[in-house]
Amino acid sequence: MNAPILNSHALDTLFLQARTHNDWLGKPVEDALLRQVWDLARMGPTSANCSPMRIVFIKSPEAKARLLPALLEGNRAKTQAAPVTVVFGNDSQFYDLLPKLFPHTDARAWFAGPGKEAVAATTAFRNGTLQAAYFMLAARALGLDCGPMSGFDNEAVDREFFPGGRIKSNFICNLGYGDSTRLFPRSPRLEFEEACRIA
Amino acid sequence: MNAPILNSHALDTLFLQARTHNDWLGKPVEDALLRQVWDLARMGPTSANCSPMRIVFIKSPEAKARLLPALLEGNRAKTQAAPVTVVFGNDSQFYDLLPKLFPHTDARAWFAGPGKEAVAATTAFRNGTLQAAYFMLAARALGLDCGPMSGFDNEAVDREFFPGGRIKSNFICNLGYGDSTRLFPRSPRLEFEEACRIA
Repeated sequence: MNAPILNSHALDTLFLQARTHNDWLGKPVEDALLRQVWDLARMGPTSANCSPMRIVFIKSPEAKARLLPALLEGNRAKTQAAPVTVVFGNDSQFYDLLPKLFPHTDARAWFAGPGKEAVAATTAFRNGTLQAAYFMLAARALGLDCGPMSGFDNEAVDREFFPGGRIKSNFICNLGYGDSTRLFPRSPRLEFEEACRIA
Repeated sequence: MNAPILNSHALDTLFLQARTHNDWLGKPVEDALLRQVWDLARMGPTSANCSPMRIVFIKSPEAKARLLPALLEGNRAKTQAAPVTVVFGNDSQFYDLLPKLFPHTDARAWFAGPGKEAVAATTAFRNGTLQAAYFMLAARALGLDCGPMSGFDNEAVDREFFPGGRIKSNFICNLGYGDSTRLFPRSPRLEFEEACRIA
């Protein structure tokens, strides 16, 4: 009755056939494509449009060399080989941009100031993580493959790439064109009844 | 050079023309469609395939009546009117399912036990939030509109819908077919240079 609005190719590309990749073809990822992914991902919803995600795209050999020591050993070779490694971070003072992002009311006051540190930190983490998911699906929508990882030393990454303490790294994602001949078998997922109920 | 893999209609549906909705058409949302959304969303990547998101779909008037008092007043009328309200929660003991979800190694030991509470809590929140984003984009892909909200009393919602303390509510999202004639103007987004850099 409810026919999919997106065709099966799109659903495969985003969800059903998409896989986390650990091996990369040599094809590079142009900066212009990273901008196209951003222009899609930024449109996804966040609370009060707070948009706390900040990104460093690591492409140069020099920047890669600064990143690799912070990773778990098992994550280093695939990250070295990826055309781009995305470091997703969250701006802990995202609220300073709310007069621009949510101009019709004083939303900054909801998050800034004494006693609001916990709600601000939770809001940054929740909404920056939503945006990182939007980013990965936007990347897939534009033909890229993703290899997300959280096995790294966040404080070491922050020292190298987010100095000053305002931005906190969330997780990392290799980006490129994956080698589909080198995928592992897919791990199982939960059935509806295992994770959901209708009340 | 890099032509979009998804066509412009799909990109519009997911990102560029999609909007957060506050007013709903009368068209119902069948349970079968909720299952289709789940079958897409569950395929998105999570750390060690940990899949911590748990969902209560609130459809019945009785369940709605239990939810509404926990919401900020400004969120009540639109939630009352929505065909479905999704409560996204995270299983704080997600690691007990890892022998099934990540069978090739003992990933449970990474998160379970004394001294690992903080990494388990962060992993549940990060990955459950990624899954909630996958869910919202999967819903849009199948023609639904979303109205996410975090303005509610999490502890009150947990008492009503996740008793026992194991599952913690994350955020809430109305789901249905939005009334596009009643949208606000779109709020601005950050430019690439405001949020991203290439290293």
